[in-house]
Amino acid sequence: MEKENDLSTLRHSTAHVMAHAVRNLFPDVKIAIGPSIEDGFYYDFDKKEPFTPEDLTAIEDEMRKIVKANSPFVRREITQAEALETFKDEPYKVELIEEIGDEVSSVYEEDGFVDWCRGPHVPSTGEIKAFKLLSIAGAYWRGDEKRPMLQRIYGTAWRTEEELQDYLTRLEESAKRDHRKLGRELELFSFDDEVGPGLVLWHPKGALIRKIIEDYWRDAHYEGGYELVQTPHIARQDLWARSGHLDFFAEGMYGPMDVEGQPFRIKPMNCPFHLAIYKSRIRSYRELPIRWAELGTVYRFERSGTLHGLIRVRGFTQDDAHIFCTPDQLEDEIIRVLNFVIQILRRFGFDEYGIYLSTMPEKHVGEEEIWEKATDALRASLEVRKLEYKVEEGGGAFYGPKIDIKIKDALGREHQCSTIQVDFNEPERFDITYIADDGKEHQPIMIHRALLGSIERFFGVLIEHYAGAFPLWLAPVQVLILPIADRHHDYAREVGKVLHAAGIRARVDDRNEKTGYKIREGQLQKVPYMLVLGDREMESNAVSVRTREEGDKGAIGLDQFVMFLREELEQ
Amino acid sequence: MEKENDLSTLRHSTAHVMAHAVRNLFPDVKIAIGPSIEDGFYYDFDKKEPFTPEDLTAIEDEMRKIVKANSPFVRREITQAEALETFKDEPYKVELIEEIGDEVSSVYEEDGFVDWCRGPHVPSTGEIKAFKLLSIAGAYWRGDEKRPMLQRIYGTAWRTEEELQDYLTRLEESAKRDHRKLGRELELFSFDDEVGPGLVLWHPKGALIRKIIEDYWRDAHYEGGYELVQTPHIARQDLWARSGHLDFFAEGMYGPMDVEGQPFRIKPMNCPFHLAIYKSRIRSYRELPIRWAELGTVYRFERSGTLHGLIRVRGFTQDDAHIFCTPDQLEDEIIRVLNFVIQILRRFGFDEYGIYLSTMPEKHVGEEEIWEKATDALRASLEVRKLEYKVEEGGGAFYGPKIDIKIKDALGREHQCSTIQVDFNEPERFDITYIADDGKEHQPIMIHRALLGSIERFFGVLIEHYAGAFPLWLAPVQVLILPIADRHHDYAREVGKVLHAAGIRARVDDRNEKTGYKIREGQLQKVPYMLVLGDREMESNAVSVRTREEGDKGAIGLDQFVMFLREELEQ
Repeated sequence: MEKENDLSTLRHSTAHVMAHAVRNLFPDVKIAIGPSIEDGFYYDFDKKEPFTPEDLTAIEDEMRKIVKANSPFVRREITQAEALETFKDEPYKVELIEEIGDEVSSVYEEDGFVDWCRGPHVPSTGEIKAFKLLSIAGAYWRGDEKRPMLQRIYGTAWRTEEELQDYLTRLEESAKRDHRKLGRELELFSFDDEVGPGLVLWHPKGALIRKIIEDYWRDAHYEGGYELVQTPHIARQDLWARSGHLDFFAEGMYGPMDVEGQPFRIKPMNCPFHLAIYKSRIRSYRELPIRWAELGTVYRFERSGTLHGLIRVRGFTQDDAHIFCTPDQLEDEIIRVLNFVIQILRRFGFDEYGIYLSTMPEKHVGEEEIWEKATDALRASLEVRKLEYKVEEGGGAFYGPKIDIKIKDALGREHQCSTIQVDFNEPERFDITYIADDGKEHQPIMIHRALLGSIERFFGVLIEHYAGAFPLWLAPVQVLILPIADRHHDYAREVGKVLHAAGIRARVDDRNEKTGYKIREGQLQKVPYMLVLGDREMESNAVSVRTREEGDKGAIGLDQFVMFLREELEQ
Repeated sequence: MEKENDLSTLRHSTAHVMAHAVRNLFPDVKIAIGPSIEDGFYYDFDKKEPFTPEDLTAIEDEMRKIVKANSPFVRREITQAEALETFKDEPYKVELIEEIGDEVSSVYEEDGFVDWCRGPHVPSTGEIKAFKLLSIAGAYWRGDEKRPMLQRIYGTAWRTEEELQDYLTRLEESAKRDHRKLGRELELFSFDDEVGPGLVLWHPKGALIRKIIEDYWRDAHYEGGYELVQTPHIARQDLWARSGHLDFFAEGMYGPMDVEGQPFRIKPMNCPFHLAIYKSRIRSYRELPIRWAELGTVYRFERSGTLHGLIRVRGFTQDDAHIFCTPDQLEDEIIRVLNFVIQILRRFGFDEYGIYLSTMPEKHVGEEEIWEKATDALRASLEVRKLEYKVEEGGGAFYGPKIDIKIKDALGREHQCSTIQVDFNEPERFDITYIADDGKEHQPIMIHRALLGSIERFFGVLIEHYAGAFPLWLAPVQVLILPIADRHHDYAREVGKVLHAAGIRARVDDRNEKTGYKIREGQLQKVPYMLVLGDREMESNAVSVRTREEGDKGAIGLDQFVMFLREELEQ
């Protein structure tokens, strides 16, 4: 933990040095803010002409000079009036200073460059051993699209040159796996400005993988004792008042739309609809637990500046479910969900998780006794399953405690994914009941749970996890059939039919192109198997197999190949 | 045709007689309008207390008196001023009369009762031989929910008592099959006022049938050479300006919702999104025809007064597809779609269709030569398929000609379902092109097509077609297993497992209820097969089968039963 803080101080100091270098090279630039962030830092600048890649190199050189000078960072406390005087030519600083009132604040100075800053900093610029500027991006001042667009320079800094190089290698690997890049190259999805930012267009191959994921998900849910339901994307605004979303989630919701003089809202959540189905008739304890699942597409507002490929979007499909149960059933149901989560995530190649139990926050609804019982149920079920977890004290939702599960991808990065939340609030707000065996009305407990979280984000993570080389069962094209010459076309189609009949997604590439060219294309498309078919194969009803990972594997009989694929798919 | 007109005159006259009777019995009632409609007539009344069923009987009696008097209907032309004077105590009539300006209009009078009416009418009230009042419903004046709510009395009238009785029998049969009633009884779906009218909540059994339909649909589309895509439910308003929907379809669209200061609209159509995917990169003639299908949920405004179960809703899923092809490919593609439509509809038990070819309307875009070519292609493909059709001259969309297919249900009623539309307009508006073999950019033709139309409406029709007794492959529960006593429970579960392993949707009903009671419940739920299991069945690994249609069929071996089901499912 201390080490992390050290790094963050180092990076923050590097940001200052960068601003200093920019000021030396471009005296007219106005400076905004420059914090440390995960793995690095940035600084925002107001400059008419855009920074060029050459500028970045020049700034790095200038930074190296400042580092070489090894000037100490000197802290000084100043009044608001002094601060305003010091930064009178820096309108962005002035705006921030004006907001603090007459508090005493601090500045840091090294070699004549002064920045308004809380600190801390490294003792002197010479401590900065290993850094690199990485990229330039546009960023609205204070994240507000109505304020000026500034230029943000991102950089990274590490304790040693070796650490820096490691990081840059990891970065390169991440860039190769970037789902936005792969999404384009593999033609999985796109965005369109005219449609709107953050709204995903699923192209045929992406939609096919999505279908495979969803088919698996739906079948697994039926097998797992769930029933599916389906609900609309819009509802009267009144429903959202009742559910509490207008109070607690308004900034995540899109504005009202008029329908016959009444305001309707597009849904940010599926739960109120499942509650409406629950309420459609009287329920008996005999029916509980009720487990209703839906691939429900929701729309939530995100600032356009924070959108990121499939990871942060404005419309996404939750693999949502709501379980209605008695207090006695709660622990069993949570264990069931935990088992189910792990089964499902494993299927997609995720075996490592970070698990977090979040307990009662200060602001909450419901009695403490029920909170305790629910938290105990969550904790007990984690322990029954022998799962390691961290406790986030007070980190629960206002309506109940929860378990969050983050999956670790092939690069060791964690991604928020599954969530299991106990809810005492909505059953109360919607006044749902069941007739217990005492003949009286009781209130069920509601569990909200999502396994993949958002299909869109999960797919983004999946692309990066596999670097686009999807396992056989998910690959949109499983086998690419490449006849060498025209006289092999009929045999290629024959092989295609046999594979199709066996439920394999095969495609014949009979274009008039060289086989080597087709193989390279197949490699780029990351097709798991390619079959090269010439005279020899045709004569012996065989196929020459190339695998995505190992290249040429020689010839085997077609029947054998089909059996081999079926075995791989059954695993 | 003439006969129809006669009937409509007869019904309109019966509506007058009903208003006359109401006036006699309830002198304070204000009268609104009373047209003939399909199979009958109605009249709207403004009356403080609601009409009761007893009132309806009294009104019928009073009508019979008026009919018996056999007074002639006398037509008279009057000026606007005269009309206003005549109806000065009838505010609804006054409102309508004021709108016509100083035109001469007509009134009809029989036995002292005068109505403002264009006519025609039967010569005298004695012509009305066979009528019945059917129901009372609320109806806003002029269909406007901001105007007063009136009481609408529906009735029917026929030439003879026999025709009337036939109709009432048909009506009774329709009522038994009413999908709203069956939807409730079989727990397929519901609506909820808090969610909003016309927005369907799919309950577990309904959602399961929907999943079966959609799974079949998706697989059939992949088999049929389509690729699936998936697109968002909202888009910038600008997209709808470009597509022309804001000009031509504005009244069917919901109001704008604000997203970061920009207006977005929920989609009434999927096509602009498919065009956006098409435009995401350069396309070559080698890729054409492109066939992209989507189960796309759209939202369209319908007045709340016109909503009707699943048949007319505000949100529905189109089984949409867009085909992009060259002019040379058009006819082949249409034949392909026609074959596909028939294949799909047959699967759902619809073998009879009404087919309509709609040609160029006066207001249209695109050159007549292309229209002719497209219409020829539609006509030729109908003829190649030897399908009978009617031509609706000038009935095409402004953007191209189309074929509409209406399915005939078990009661012989036609339902608009499939549509195949050729579109020259959107390719132009979105400026989509492909590089042809001449190396130049050309504009593809676009075909819009839906086979089921709306999944919601189709499901409504399907429920009524089968009277809720879905064929085996669609039945949410295919086999209900009924152990006679506790000692048969294990065997029942064993049978359940065997069926489940064979892919059969089976359920064990092991509640502590009499077998007769469970059988009656299974009948009401229209489960295709029930298995009654007692000692004899248990000893011989057999099952006693009851079918939905024929009742008790005796015992057979379990293996035999599974084979029998599989055969039925494969048909």
